[in-house]
Amino acid sequence: MSEQGILASIEFQMSLLLFVALAGYLIAYRINQSAVVGIILAGIVVGPSLLGWVEHTDFVSSLGHLGAVVLLFTIGLHFNIKDIANVKYFLIALAGIIVPWIAGFYLAKMFGYDTTASVFIGTALTATSIAITANVLKEMGKLQTEAAKAIIGAAIIDDVLSLLALTISAEIVSGALSPPLILVTILKAIAFLVIGVILGSKVISRIMIRLDNTRFCGKYPESIFIFAIMVAFLYSLVAELAGLSAIIGSFLAGVALTRVKLKHDVSFRKGAEHLQIIFASIFFISLGVLLDFHEVTLDLVWFILILTIVALFTKFIGCGVPAKLQGINTRDSLIIGVGMIPRGEVAMIIALIGLNQNLIMQDTYAALVLMSLLTTIIPPLILRNWLFKVKSKKKKADGIKIDTLHQS
Amino acid sequence: MSEQGILASIEFQMSLLLFVALAGYLIAYRINQSAVVGIILAGIVVGPSLLGWVEHTDFVSSLGHLGAVVLLFTIGLHFNIKDIANVKYFLIALAGIIVPWIAGFYLAKMFGYDTTASVFIGTALTATSIAITANVLKEMGKLQTEAAKAIIGAAIIDDVLSLLALTISAEIVSGALSPPLILVTILKAIAFLVIGVILGSKVISRIMIRLDNTRFCGKYPESIFIFAIMVAFLYSLVAELAGLSAIIGSFLAGVALTRVKLKHDVSFRKGAEHLQIIFASIFFISLGVLLDFHEVTLDLVWFILILTIVALFTKFIGCGVPAKLQGINTRDSLIIGVGMIPRGEVAMIIALIGLNQNLIMQDTYAALVLMSLLTTIIPPLILRNWLFKVKSKKKKADGIKIDTLHQS
Repeated sequence: MSEQGILASIEFQMSLLLFVALAGYLIAYRINQSAVVGIILAGIVVGPSLLGWVEHTDFVSSLGHLGAVVLLFTIGLHFNIKDIANVKYFLIALAGIIVPWIAGFYLAKMFGYDTTASVFIGTALTATSIAITANVLKEMGKLQTEAAKAIIGAAIIDDVLSLLALTISAEIVSGALSPPLILVTILKAIAFLVIGVILGSKVISRIMIRLDNTRFCGKYPESIFIFAIMVAFLYSLVAELAGLSAIIGSFLAGVALTRVKLKHDVSFRKGAEHLQIIFASIFFISLGVLLDFHEVTLDLVWFILILTIVALFTKFIGCGVPAKLQGINTRDSLIIGVGMIPRGEVAMIIALIGLNQNLIMQDTYAALVLMSLLTTIIPPLILRNWLFKVKSKKKKADGIKIDTLHQS
Repeated sequence: MSEQGILASIEFQMSLLLFVALAGYLIAYRINQSAVVGIILAGIVVGPSLLGWVEHTDFVSSLGHLGAVVLLFTIGLHFNIKDIANVKYFLIALAGIIVPWIAGFYLAKMFGYDTTASVFIGTALTATSIAITANVLKEMGKLQTEAAKAIIGAAIIDDVLSLLALTISAEIVSGALSPPLILVTILKAIAFLVIGVILGSKVISRIMIRLDNTRFCGKYPESIFIFAIMVAFLYSLVAELAGLSAIIGSFLAGVALTRVKLKHDVSFRKGAEHLQIIFASIFFISLGVLLDFHEVTLDLVWFILILTIVALFTKFIGCGVPAKLQGINTRDSLIIGVGMIPRGEVAMIIALIGLNQNLIMQDTYAALVLMSLLTTIIPPLILRNWLFKVKSKKKKADGIKIDTLHQS
């Protein structure tokens, strides 16, 4: 086999990716941070920025995408729909969209960007990555806290709203802003969410319970697991068709199946977890690999720094203040404000769309990716070292293991 | 999203593939056959031959390949090296290579193929697919029988020998048959097998045990799982570098880790099993999808039928007779003869190499693929309905569940 052939081979790619994942865990352990941060950092190191070992090939991006879908599915499996659907969270999400959007627009204008690019940079700031924050909360065993529910709930509504913002931005830019089109987008998203939950908890859950009791399933218990993963991908497909992002779909699938009790229950829940361990790692590596420091000029550094600071504070204030105003206690409001900051892959995807449609140039793309990355790395540090510190120390003293990806 | 975009999306592909996998399980259940056969049949139905829903895209082939590697790893985890390394099995494999090779060559000559194509058709007949037979045996809970050990042992040696046969064929065709090159190929293969086993059971096992006892692993128990899968892919990479097929490598990794006892043992064994459930299904679907009936002309049908019959009998006799001659009882010799028949993906890969190097034409390729497929579908039927029937009925009477993919 030629050298090219070896480097492109699935065997080499997988060995390398899993090695990088392990290195990421080790980094996380050494610097006492979340595994997510460790793995993204490991991704940056092996990506084009430094070593250049891993490229963002179709293979890496496919497996990463697969990992993101499975990750949100396993996270969804820990939630009831009632935990999320809440007017409070809607208001947190809404303010968390408007504040960064406006601030981002004016900041870009100040730096001399034209209106098109400015609208677009504002849009990229509206995103919130559920994947990152939820995984950090999951790692810390905090998914069932009040603040976590608010963050997840608001992040999902945020995702809906920011995809809406993207549509509206595109309309503003093309000069064809039409209320009917926006309305259609909104209605499609709402219809998907409502129908998805009802269908999932009424119809699909029942099909699974029925399947679970057949002799077929007795012979092939793995069929439940295959079925559940199929549902996760089916939901993410429909979410994309409804104009939402795929991971909203798989999250919803998880939520819809949360309360199903099956004979072969452990099989599909553990199975999803095992898929997630391998492929979500690859997803986080791919986020690090997406970045190339070489495209960042010195001129751009100032813009990136200020953009990041604006991104941090607008989301923190935009979400934290409404939380506090609605009667959530100060500490939880702070956690919510910080927890909503990560832009993660969502802003990166928006940035990629902008680049492909020539709305922004390569350097602006790099700036948005770096901003996403910084906003992704910083909040877990704050959450772990500051906001959850007191409780964490106390728990450690009680001898309770709090740091694990495996939920009890 | 455009219709093209939807059909190419990972969400759509995964939903469809898992749906097809479930359909395959149902077919298998209905016709009371192995899940492998059911899933390959489902793959044929949705492939270009009939419905044309699934194509053999890079995505499908990557995930299928990944599935084959993981499948052989999980199978390897049930074997000790002493079960396989055996002179008896070597002789079974060797005769099982020579007889089909010679018979295939003369049959092709009779049908008017030139010497190049004839040598190549002979080579394609030498292959044995461990993946198929081993999975059938696994499904039936027969992996620990004497016959299964002989089949697996001989199939592995066969894989080494048939890749050697491919090298030798290429040399015959190019007129540059040189003993030194053949010797190098053999030595590389042997070196890999010996070093792989020693390194695995002495060094890698110890690293895993050490990792298992660290505080790092206590915090991140999934690291053992990631490590084990990494080793599987690393072994398959080195196997390819040594000129063997990737799955031999991952099988060897499994064998090397069979006897490791860890605190987080369940995690990595169950984890590998869960990966295998999803991705091995995709692998079996991809085998069905590889086939396109449209390329089979009426003229070709006779050749395919006779080629298949020759493939069946030469392997059956080539392996069954040496087994019997070496003192294995008649029933086990029959099982070994039948169990070695499946050409599966190995012959398909060889056929693809021939096509790419212009050694054979498109129609010969189709013939070899169909032959592979028929030899893959027929033996499980014989094994389940005939050779294992008596014992199976007896066991059913004892109330022991024998049909499950989950080994105890």
